[in-house]
Amino acid sequence: MASTPLSLSPPRGMRDFYPEAMRVRNAVFDAWRGAAARFGFEEYDACVVENLELLQRKAGEEIVDQIYAFRDKSGRNLALRPEMTPTLARLVAARRQALALPLKWHCIAQCFRYERATRGRKREHYQWNLDILGEPSVAAENEIVGAAVCALDALGLERSAYRVHVSSRALVGELLDRLEVPPAHHPAVFLALDKLGKLEEPKIRALLSDAGLDASAIARVFELLNVASLDDAEALLGRRTPAAARLAALFEDAEPAGYQEVLTFDIRVVRGLAYYTGIVFEGFDTARDFRAIFGGGRYDNLLADVGGTSLTGVGLGFGDVVIAELLAARGRMPAAAAERDTAVGFMDVAQRRAALRLAARLRAEGRSVDLALAPEKARSFFARAGKQGFREAVYLGPDDLRNGTARIKDLRNRTERPLALD
Amino acid sequence: MASTPLSLSPPRGMRDFYPEAMRVRNAVFDAWRGAAARFGFEEYDACVVENLELLQRKAGEEIVDQIYAFRDKSGRNLALRPEMTPTLARLVAARRQALALPLKWHCIAQCFRYERATRGRKREHYQWNLDILGEPSVAAENEIVGAAVCALDALGLERSAYRVHVSSRALVGELLDRLEVPPAHHPAVFLALDKLGKLEEPKIRALLSDAGLDASAIARVFELLNVASLDDAEALLGRRTPAAARLAALFEDAEPAGYQEVLTFDIRVVRGLAYYTGIVFEGFDTARDFRAIFGGGRYDNLLADVGGTSLTGVGLGFGDVVIAELLAARGRMPAAAAERDTAVGFMDVAQRRAALRLAARLRAEGRSVDLALAPEKARSFFARAGKQGFREAVYLGPDDLRNGTARIKDLRNRTERPLALD
Repeated sequence: MASTPLSLSPPRGMRDFYPEAMRVRNAVFDAWRGAAARFGFEEYDACVVENLELLQRKAGEEIVDQIYAFRDKSGRNLALRPEMTPTLARLVAARRQALALPLKWHCIAQCFRYERATRGRKREHYQWNLDILGEPSVAAENEIVGAAVCALDALGLERSAYRVHVSSRALVGELLDRLEVPPAHHPAVFLALDKLGKLEEPKIRALLSDAGLDASAIARVFELLNVASLDDAEALLGRRTPAAARLAALFEDAEPAGYQEVLTFDIRVVRGLAYYTGIVFEGFDTARDFRAIFGGGRYDNLLADVGGTSLTGVGLGFGDVVIAELLAARGRMPAAAAERDTAVGFMDVAQRRAALRLAARLRAEGRSVDLALAPEKARSFFARAGKQGFREAVYLGPDDLRNGTARIKDLRNRTERPLALD
Repeated sequence: MASTPLSLSPPRGMRDFYPEAMRVRNAVFDAWRGAAARFGFEEYDACVVENLELLQRKAGEEIVDQIYAFRDKSGRNLALRPEMTPTLARLVAARRQALALPLKWHCIAQCFRYERATRGRKREHYQWNLDILGEPSVAAENEIVGAAVCALDALGLERSAYRVHVSSRALVGELLDRLEVPPAHHPAVFLALDKLGKLEEPKIRALLSDAGLDASAIARVFELLNVASLDDAEALLGRRTPAAARLAALFEDAEPAGYQEVLTFDIRVVRGLAYYTGIVFEGFDTARDFRAIFGGGRYDNLLADVGGTSLTGVGLGFGDVVIAELLAARGRMPAAAAERDTAVGFMDVAQRRAALRLAARLRAEGRSVDLALAPEKARSFFARAGKQGFREAVYLGPDDLRNGTARIKDLRNRTERPLALD
């Protein structure tokens, strides 16, 4: 049957999760789910296969080229979703009347993007999505950022290790008005700001020039970068504008919400996706060695774009790759070694039934039990149990069955206690 | 932008999981993961996108036609996996030397099959896969079946509500030898047995006839159906053959392992997939109103088919759809209503900071807290908290701030206790 050997690698850019990698992934997912539960978000999901038309209509422009699209046997145009937001819009629009607002939903979504593998980026990842829909006040942004910080706390990342960089597209719009950059050029400026740090400055100037900005307008755009604080922004604007007031309110909320020390104003944060309209934020490691840990912001046209009535919302996307790299670099990787309760072994087939019965009893008590599948010498059983990370081990020999009592050994402190075999 | 309205339905055969459906899915996944942990299985995973060639080479024949295949932008032939077993074979073959045997692994895998939607079947589902590799004794079958029973216990399905039907392809082979059905015809007989109950008897006779069996051989095949117990099989064979002895050993293990009452001999169980070689089993509801809850068995050629050395194993697949239908029919559906801890509300913006601080404190204590995003009248806050299933609720008004103490109300027994606002 196996004429030529098959490749044993996963498809290019796709990931295998052997048990040690799976434990790390589960630790990240648990932190996400735990934070979502504490903040009262309800979990939802949808199939990773979506209607291509929805994704083309709704996904961020730069993503559309990277969609894994295919046709099913009936000729339907399907795709593996590149992000969850279009699907969220579809789900909410389909039940718009029945859903109580504000709505707080989260999911852990596998997402696919076809990117050149040279950049070392994977073509699939898991992304935690948090969204609050139907709440116009900055209380929504506060809850979303608070939940992201809660997840990082749960993962053991110190508060000093990262910052949540926050800005506002509306504020940048007001600043550009003040700097007399015409509104028609604002989208190009957002794109250019998003490329800062990723492209050289001359290339960014070229982008702006290509978009039709003259040398004077480009110079004024670069003045934006001198805005290092909300105070600077208000000074340039000459007053506390509505957008500045919203941003100030978020900074005020951060104190009682308990994450003030990680929040920092950063005019360069705009987010790549076109659908954000208000406050935007990105989490970065303090040393800026990694890409963004998470990012999000307020969008106002989510449902309108799928044909529903407009609904304001705040969303966040938090991938599983960067956080794992950052935790590993800081020696904070969740335990890749298994934590298991009890190993049960036996000397001879004569003790097999008793071992089965004991394992069934310990499992019924809720313990994780690895039952030896074959007889084993005591020495090799205890060596294996120690190596595989069991907390305790029970080994049955003929004497134990005669006495009706076995000994259960604690493998950490090397104590043992009797255990009745009933 | 939204010129024509988009479809708000998921792609045909794909499922959306709104929060109430997601809670059910999570309850099933938790039962699976809990049982796997108790039985000492390690979790693994791999991307749902697989190399098409692996799936074509390794998947059960009847599945190959139903594969969702596509090409990526580099022309690679990829596919959405229809089952996890070929991927498991790839993962194990790739690390054959480093993995300690016997190996006990499990995963919850999303799988896709393109089937005609007229049958009411979905085109994607989640399947719990349990596998033990490298253990030749029936201890492996015993652990796998025991873990499946443990998961059903956790889901609250009564032991009387289902049976685990068990047979052995090796035993059926011995019986066919005894009935003088030539070995070349055995695969056709396995296929025919698998169709019993799905096709009318004349169609099954036609299948066998098409495969080259004459009338006399077909009549002898139907004699198989008179074998109603392992004793019947041994009587027909004239002795306890090796295959009969293995099956008897599994029945003996079931008693100390604690699931004897659900195990039943059933000569008709063969499993559709060609790769099984020994004991096979399927879980069915007692009334036989549903398709199989789970199924599995022993396979011997898993790794050889991907180009590695041979390795014996036992596997089980347990889907999320049939069990949910069965639990719903028996009124055992996991709670579709959310269980949430604490709702925090406030009367006026003046109490907002105190509410934020209180929510942060309760969350830090590990509680699930839904913080009101806007001021609300007491009446509507408590009505909403009751309707949404919160255990308790705290509502802050001006008096509470003045006193430095709020009242936390237990919404079930209608008691309240003071809570200091520090």
